[in-house]
Amino acid sequence: MGARTGLWFIGARGSVATTATVGALAVTAGLAQRVGCVADHPEVAVARPPGIEDLLIGGHDVVADSLPKRAEALAGGGVFGIDLVRALHDALSQADGRIRHGVTVGEGNQRDAIEQVSRDLAGFRAAHALDQVVVVDVSTTEPPIELTPALSDVDELDRALAAGESPLPLSSLYAYAALRSGCPFVAFTPSPGPRLPALAQLAERMGLPWAGSDGKTGETLIKSALAPMFATRALRVRSWSSHNLLGGGDGRALADPVTAASKTQSKGLGLESILGHPVDGPLHIDYVPDLGEWKTAWDMVSFEGLLGTRMSMQFTWQGCDSALAAPLVLDLARLAARAQQAGEAGPLGALGFFFKDPAGGGGHDLGGQWRALTDWCARIGGDR
Amino acid sequence: MGARTGLWFIGARGSVATTATVGALAVTAGLAQRVGCVADHPEVAVARPPGIEDLLIGGHDVVADSLPKRAEALAGGGVFGIDLVRALHDALSQADGRIRHGVTVGEGNQRDAIEQVSRDLAGFRAAHALDQVVVVDVSTTEPPIELTPALSDVDELDRALAAGESPLPLSSLYAYAALRSGCPFVAFTPSPGPRLPALAQLAERMGLPWAGSDGKTGETLIKSALAPMFATRALRVRSWSSHNLLGGGDGRALADPVTAASKTQSKGLGLESILGHPVDGPLHIDYVPDLGEWKTAWDMVSFEGLLGTRMSMQFTWQGCDSALAAPLVLDLARLAARAQQAGEAGPLGALGFFFKDPAGGGGHDLGGQWRALTDWCARIGGDR
Amino acid sequence: MGARTGLWFIGARGSVATTATVGALAVTAGLAQRVGCVADHPEVAVARPPGIEDLLIGGHDVVADSLPKRAEALAGGGVFGIDLVRALHDALSQADGRIRHGVTVGEGNQRDAIEQVSRDLAGFRAAHALDQVVVVDVSTTEPPIELTPALSDVDELDRALAAGESPLPLSSLYAYAALRSGCPFVAFTPSPGPRLPALAQLAERMGLPWAGSDGKTGETLIKSALAPMFATRALRVRSWSSHNLLGGGDGRALADPVTAASKTQSKGLGLESILGHPVDGPLHIDYVPDLGEWKTAWDMVSFEGLLGTRMSMQFTWQGCDSALAAPLVLDLARLAARAQQAGEAGPLGALGFFFKDPAGGGGHDLGGQWRALTDWCARIGGDR
Amino acid sequence: MGARTGLWFIGARGSVATTATVGALAVTAGLAQRVGCVADHPEVAVARPPGIEDLLIGGHDVVADSLPKRAEALAGGGVFGIDLVRALHDALSQADGRIRHGVTVGEGNQRDAIEQVSRDLAGFRAAHALDQVVVVDVSTTEPPIELTPALSDVDELDRALAAGESPLPLSSLYAYAALRSGCPFVAFTPSPGPRLPALAQLAERMGLPWAGSDGKTGETLIKSALAPMFATRALRVRSWSSHNLLGGGDGRALADPVTAASKTQSKGLGLESILGHPVDGPLHIDYVPDLGEWKTAWDMVSFEGLLGTRMSMQFTWQGCDSALAAPLVLDLARLAARAQQAGEAGPLGALGFFFKDPAGGGGHDLGGQWRALTDWCARIGGDR
Repeated sequence: MGARTGLWFIGARGSVATTATVGALAVTAGLAQRVGCVADHPEVAVARPPGIEDLLIGGHDVVADSLPKRAEALAGGGVFGIDLVRALHDALSQADGRIRHGVTVGEGNQRDAIEQVSRDLAGFRAAHALDQVVVVDVSTTEPPIELTPALSDVDELDRALAAGESPLPLSSLYAYAALRSGCPFVAFTPSPGPRLPALAQLAERMGLPWAGSDGKTGETLIKSALAPMFATRALRVRSWSSHNLLGGGDGRALADPVTAASKTQSKGLGLESILGHPVDGPLHIDYVPDLGEWKTAWDMVSFEGLLGTRMSMQFTWQGCDSALAAPLVLDLARLAARAQQAGEAGPLGALGFFFKDPAGGGGHDLGGQWRALTDWCARIGGDR
Repeated sequence: MGARTGLWFIGARGSVATTATVGALAVTAGLAQRVGCVADHPEVAVARPPGIEDLLIGGHDVVADSLPKRAEALAGGGVFGIDLVRALHDALSQADGRIRHGVTVGEGNQRDAIEQVSRDLAGFRAAHALDQVVVVDVSTTEPPIELTPALSDVDELDRALAAGESPLPLSSLYAYAALRSGCPFVAFTPSPGPRLPALAQLAERMGLPWAGSDGKTGETLIKSALAPMFATRALRVRSWSSHNLLGGGDGRALADPVTAASKTQSKGLGLESILGHPVDGPLHIDYVPDLGEWKTAWDMVSFEGLLGTRMSMQFTWQGCDSALAAPLVLDLARLAARAQQAGEAGPLGALGFFFKDPAGGGGHDLGGQWRALTDWCARIGGDR
Repeated sequence: MGARTGLWFIGARGSVATTATVGALAVTAGLAQRVGCVADHPEVAVARPPGIEDLLIGGHDVVADSLPKRAEALAGGGVFGIDLVRALHDALSQADGRIRHGVTVGEGNQRDAIEQVSRDLAGFRAAHALDQVVVVDVSTTEPPIELTPALSDVDELDRALAAGESPLPLSSLYAYAALRSGCPFVAFTPSPGPRLPALAQLAERMGLPWAGSDGKTGETLIKSALAPMFATRALRVRSWSSHNLLGGGDGRALADPVTAASKTQSKGLGLESILGHPVDGPLHIDYVPDLGEWKTAWDMVSFEGLLGTRMSMQFTWQGCDSALAAPLVLDLARLAARAQQAGEAGPLGALGFFFKDPAGGGGHDLGGQWRALTDWCARIGGDR
Repeated sequence: MGARTGLWFIGARGSVATTATVGALAVTAGLAQRVGCVADHPEVAVARPPGIEDLLIGGHDVVADSLPKRAEALAGGGVFGIDLVRALHDALSQADGRIRHGVTVGEGNQRDAIEQVSRDLAGFRAAHALDQVVVVDVSTTEPPIELTPALSDVDELDRALAAGESPLPLSSLYAYAALRSGCPFVAFTPSPGPRLPALAQLAERMGLPWAGSDGKTGETLIKSALAPMFATRALRVRSWSSHNLLGGGDGRALADPVTAASKTQSKGLGLESILGHPVDGPLHIDYVPDLGEWKTAWDMVSFEGLLGTRMSMQFTWQGCDSALAAPLVLDLARLAARAQQAGEAGPLGALGFFFKDPAGGGGHDLGGQWRALTDWCARIGGDR
């Protein structure tokens, strides 16, 4: 074994990255089972991605609390047991030692920031003799932005950067540095990241795969499993109302309506696509600090059958976002690494199964996405 | 237009058949839209099944209340509007005139009863110059039975009947008469019907298609859409508890625990099949007369993610079983008729999409069943 | 019998007034039971309010659709049966003939409008030889307003009206006219109505009783029954999130955030009052046209017990606001009429049981409000 | 401080007693707040019950696992934090040292068993110089029993015991020994305990207070808060369906239908009493081991309003029974101790607030029970 694949988190001390790190270390140490790991499913494992044990985790963050501290806080919130954190204390401290201070918006010009990020990535790869490094963005969601010429074309972008301008949102700055450094990039948040046309062009030029965006972990996941039922049964959905209550850092960011716009946009995409028509109903995301890392979502679907009979379905989802997202970011890192090995470039549409707003096409129906994923894995796996 | 396909209901004055008859007449008269009709979905319509307008409905029943009376009662229960019943009064009376008195268990020997059913079917076909007649069982659910030699082999069965014995449960008696009369058979209830080995052999010998069993209209439908989500996301389902409250005649029959065994058996099949392991949790069906034709189901799924984090999902389904089942029995009649035209024989596994306990193989995952159905329709549609 | 008590609705063709009128006529005609009528409860009936049969209904409205038309529309939405509307057609037409065209804001000065309303009330009383007339506001909710000197003091108000000014919100204009005409007034909406200090003074001077405001019919009703459970059991409520989905005219009005402010204010009052501390959590009211007269509310309560153990409770309320409100407005008219007979003046705190924002004090705990109501009824009933 | 009131648990190492012991020790050590303690509510504290700090806990049990072990297991199930258990380890061990081996059914005659229990109680009191000892039964629920002459009359009972017979269910044997030893008795389970006529007579003769039975901690608690809403609003409840899922030892005992009969009987009592008529609908208690100490209850209430409009309400309660019950058993011990000081004898009807099946009368309406409790506390408190 011996780790040969680097996993570099943007937001390495956030809840998702911390839980993923605890999870990877626990699985490697034999202290946890691989529950929730899609890449260990036989139909996916056929692609021969690197194992969880093969991952070495590092990353950027701007908060000072150490990984062990963050893990203790999450244990206090019931995400995992405090005894596990204690058992992994040394490994977590070592992982924390691989976290570099991140860059922020508005300090210096972006060329320098890109330099710094690239240096950190190169240093990580060299220090640990890694074959490849996948960069995964799990940092705070950014608000939507408007396209400018520099964001629409990579040559324009290079010119602007060379001229000392700072045109990039932070998520895209990291994506730029990652791609320039030869690293596949995974956008687990709805932030612009690699989805700007200029960045997508850059990935194409570099011959690098990327995946995104916005991990599908809870309410939207269920929608993408349930909406096809209504569609194939020809039941007319009259309204679909969605209410999300969440605490934690994610909740706090989304309490800002400007930022929340990114999330409500990507959450709303799938329903219309699956049902084939717009659907009425509110979509709320509310910050309820008391809930901590836990999210409660309530959805109410009103539909009608033959002869206009009105019926309804409700569901309540009570999930721990970090515990749901953590195995997925490990899956994505492993599959993106494998995609790079297999010579794939551009948006990995086959990974749409993981995302609310899948880049690279493929629809939103969870069953269809699963088939696309497993077909791709079978193909990749056959390619030796 | 001019109807050329007969649809013969066993239980023709029950809630499902009455609603289906109102629905077919309303659609034909332009008084209702085809909501909930799977056979009108483009990917299914490609099979070119007969239209709803091409169906002529008749059937057997042992209750005396006329179809217009039964429809009024259902309108009173909110299944459809009373004004629709009034507008269709004459057409419903005509359909009621095509209902013959059914046979019952224990009166005379079964050879005579089969004769009578066959005569009624032949009379229906002749009187209306029908090209084909599909028989659909929507009568009261029977308890499970034990296999005997006469139920296990068609030659044994013929011998027993010839000897004046009465070995068949009622649903299978109807299936026997239908198949002997050259009619495809659809088992919409969990009663034994055509699923006994002797009956399946008979269908094979007659070169007739049949489909079953137990229409998947509500809680089990949702399970078959949701369970694949847990399976493909590798989330471990720890328990899945199901509570069904229903009134109406169906509820009354299921209040008898012996009869309910048929239903709880077929309801329980899918989950283990989809998840790949047995799942703990109660499955209750309770008769609450107050609910009338409406069913409320509440399910609670307890599952765990990475690091053992416990999470849960609940759903409440508030559906009108008759309004959900009615378009499906029309769909099944149309697709079984088309299957007969296309020369299909034996259990129609491609129609598993409609059933809790699909005969003919194919799994329980709703998405996979949809794919199997549409693949079959494309194949049948190409066969001119 | 013969009706001696007039019930005059502001908004007489709205959903609540129409349902109340249908209800009163149906009960009087022996076509419906007195379900949902608090005033028929033995502990309330002891006050000897006028019976439903003693009520004669009239009112103001600005919409043109007749009562029978409005009732048909409500029957179409499932509030009651169409056959009942047909049976009551003539009585509804007669009631419609007692509806006068209402006044609106911004046409002419308010003195004239008050004159017109007063004339209509006097005409109603005279034409039907009524002993008393109670005015009940069930018209569209108005946004909150800021107090001005004219709204704070009745003498200032009279001066302003005499000077041709138009200082009053419409609900208060009606209340002014009603009180000046010697009619008790019931504010069933959160509109300012009689709650402005100038109006409250006027009621005092006229020696007239009034009641309000904002009928407690659904989610807030439940809160007022459940919150005392948490309070008396010393369970710490950490957050209480409330989501209301409603269609209908009420929903449309509340889709305007300015108007909704009235409603969310009165809905939010009780919880803090009962629990004794502010409680976190969103309170949404969303307009979902598909739901028609029906409202679905989902609440999620997060609380903790001994040793900080986190627990939760959710409820879903699926109610028909018109059907819930209608008996209450009849109750209120009957009890306000009785209060006037008994010489009560000022805000009827004992009627807080009916309101989200009870005028006249008394707290929000439903059990306590019931006790206050029944104590008052016993007292009033003893006063012959 | 110095404890002067003994609290003796029957079932001292069960989940409820363990949580109560952890809770009392944590509060005394300043490591936890008094959340969920009714006796600390100002309107109850006026009775001047002994404080939590004044309680010394001991008890009987037949399981061997020590209190610290049991507390660790509960911490693993999320009832409280593992660090709290570690901080209280020594105190828990000391409490464990005060637990004596309990008696069981069928070993020797009951006179000897009563002797042994009495000796243990006397020893506890003497060793710690306690002013009084309250015995609280939180052991496993027993099935219902049939009354015999010996259970119906205390003199008959004494004769039978003297004759070497063993007529008593275990819960009543403990109650007998407690009362003979001068200890107030609290029946927190639905087991017969002190409710048999012979035992009630004994309490009367001994001049001792007792309270019971079956702690109202979850779904029944909510029913007793919600049902009065329907009753006072004159809404007709058509059906009320109740589903309880629970794991833990309590769930295992109740998986036995004979034992469960005790529980479903006491759970069903309140609804009919509050609504004034029988109510249709199933009441299930299912053992779902996966849920551990947690209980999920789902209730569905179908009701109608004016003009027969059908509406519904559902709720889901997700509670930790041990965390809910623990403060209540401390409350009950404190209030029963105070009642003894105040010279109260017989069933304490004023404590009905705490029970599903309140002994001593007083109804099931939670609001009314609260008033009865606080009235009693005010009276007791004034009695110096």
